[in-house]
Amino acid sequence: MRQWVLTALILAAPAHADELSSWNDGAAKKAIVEFVQKTTTQGSDKFVPPEERIATFDQDGTLWVEHPMYTQVMYCLDRVPAVVKAKPELAQKEPFKTVMSGDREKIARLGMKDLEVILAATLTGMSTEQFADEARKWLDEAKDPRWKRPYTELAYQPMLELLQYLRANGYHTYIVTGGGQDFVRAYAERVYGIPPEQVVGTAGVTKYGYDKAGKPFLLKEPKLLLNDDKAGKPEGIHLMIGRRPHFAFGNSDGDREMLEYTTAGDAPRLALLVHHDDAEREYAYDAKTKVGTFSDALMSEAKKSNWTVVSMKNDWKRIFAFEP
Amino acid sequence: MRQWVLTALILAAPAHADELSSWNDGAAKKAIVEFVQKTTTQGSDKFVPPEERIATFDQDGTLWVEHPMYTQVMYCLDRVPAVVKAKPELAQKEPFKTVMSGDREKIARLGMKDLEVILAATLTGMSTEQFADEARKWLDEAKDPRWKRPYTELAYQPMLELLQYLRANGYHTYIVTGGGQDFVRAYAERVYGIPPEQVVGTAGVTKYGYDKAGKPFLLKEPKLLLNDDKAGKPEGIHLMIGRRPHFAFGNSDGDREMLEYTTAGDAPRLALLVHHDDAEREYAYDAKTKVGTFSDALMSEAKKSNWTVVSMKNDWKRIFAFEP
Repeated sequence: MRQWVLTALILAAPAHADELSSWNDGAAKKAIVEFVQKTTTQGSDKFVPPEERIATFDQDGTLWVEHPMYTQVMYCLDRVPAVVKAKPELAQKEPFKTVMSGDREKIARLGMKDLEVILAATLTGMSTEQFADEARKWLDEAKDPRWKRPYTELAYQPMLELLQYLRANGYHTYIVTGGGQDFVRAYAERVYGIPPEQVVGTAGVTKYGYDKAGKPFLLKEPKLLLNDDKAGKPEGIHLMIGRRPHFAFGNSDGDREMLEYTTAGDAPRLALLVHHDDAEREYAYDAKTKVGTFSDALMSEAKKSNWTVVSMKNDWKRIFAFEP
Repeated sequence: MRQWVLTALILAAPAHADELSSWNDGAAKKAIVEFVQKTTTQGSDKFVPPEERIATFDQDGTLWVEHPMYTQVMYCLDRVPAVVKAKPELAQKEPFKTVMSGDREKIARLGMKDLEVILAATLTGMSTEQFADEARKWLDEAKDPRWKRPYTELAYQPMLELLQYLRANGYHTYIVTGGGQDFVRAYAERVYGIPPEQVVGTAGVTKYGYDKAGKPFLLKEPKLLLNDDKAGKPEGIHLMIGRRPHFAFGNSDGDREMLEYTTAGDAPRLALLVHHDDAEREYAYDAKTKVGTFSDALMSEAKKSNWTVVSMKNDWKRIFAFEP
């Protein structure tokens, strides 16, 4: 009988902030802990019922490293040889020719239009299941050029702890990413503990059809359905969740609308931004940074709106789980 | 201490099939209970891990009455006077003129194109929050012409029990409806215990913007994003859930692709169809039935594919909660 009682007591115990052990004590950690405590304490005038505890997180630059290039773009570039092998006529066509040349400088100079052509060619034209298999195979083998580790190890340890802390307090943690929904779903459960149905991302049209044996499948088509960036983030949140978040975390101008939409709801709401200011342990973004732009306008809106800016350098004790 | 122990024991007790008390004993109930038992019993070779226990339900005609007209269409027709009041020039324009005439026969003869014009005029051009408020207000007051009761009381009692039974066994119950996602979300939590994030439906584009005071809102636009019917159902399931269901329940040709997609996955899977064959207690559909078509082709696919056809007349002991 003792075992039962003990289990019941453990289940009833509240989750403590000690779980945020990779966070330094400071304004950011304090804001998070106070918010969670007041929204989960029965009788508090800021109590939020469990079903409404929605927390949304940008992914690239918020939950894991996005420099020097989004991981998904790395994946697409790595897929180009297979695409060219299947369609040899692409070898002499741009932008495939540049990618096949292996010239890193030239590849880095490819524009948005070129990237869109590469994304369409490498992410579509296959079934949703084939896509997930390919992506998982790549994630098992590919390594980040700086840390020489699988990309999935480049998730930020303080954020993994935060996701866990929120869930332990009844929050439903969602990813809301400009990245491809199907790509992120291929590893989100394993890396973040976030299941596919809680990944909101940029999504293409899929088309239901039958293979030669009459078995149904969904074909990924090169047609955009939801561009889940900037204003697309609150739009995607409404489409896929249908509730306004109480907690939102981003790191760039692409997250501005998600944070605005979150904090426009009745209190209590908490909005946060990761500020990449740590060149030594990760990256310090500046005006020339191509991805993850953090403009002066965003910083002044954050101050005006009382959003919490998290300094990677000062607020995070360690950045990756593999650090000592 | 005794209280704790008791609670722990109650929580640990498995859910029993006695909860399906509005179902008659027969092949349908047997198929459901056996499926749930084998997929939730640890060690069974058909065991399905809790996170993969996805069950999808069509709404109109599967969870509640869809005759003589979809409830949402009733709502839109009732909204027309308010729309015409705001835009008086519509009063002399079709199809608004016919609706304003109150001539039930003429209204019943309106075609799909006319209905689309009415749906666009009555469901869009307002914020998502205004829409939800309007819909809830109507649902509180409107009554079905046959039973003289709120539409929300016309949910089928055996299906409410089934939703509850599945959830008690760790299944995640989703609505996958051709009806408007925002409309169904306005009452799904209250009526079915299904939260907004588990309602997949036909959805329009929303547009993020700011009101005069600078407060952000989402405007419902008259532009279709996801047509969640027929092939759109598996497409919507992939978009919003990202997992193939293990259990799917429909009632018409519009659900065929959802059932095909479900049963095309590795076993175990269960697909079911409500057959409306009870003119006395509800409706018996025939070849002239406009909504909820159950074609001969669907019936033969059901037989061939081993889908369970549920006879409303024989399998359901009672249909509504308000029946004695």
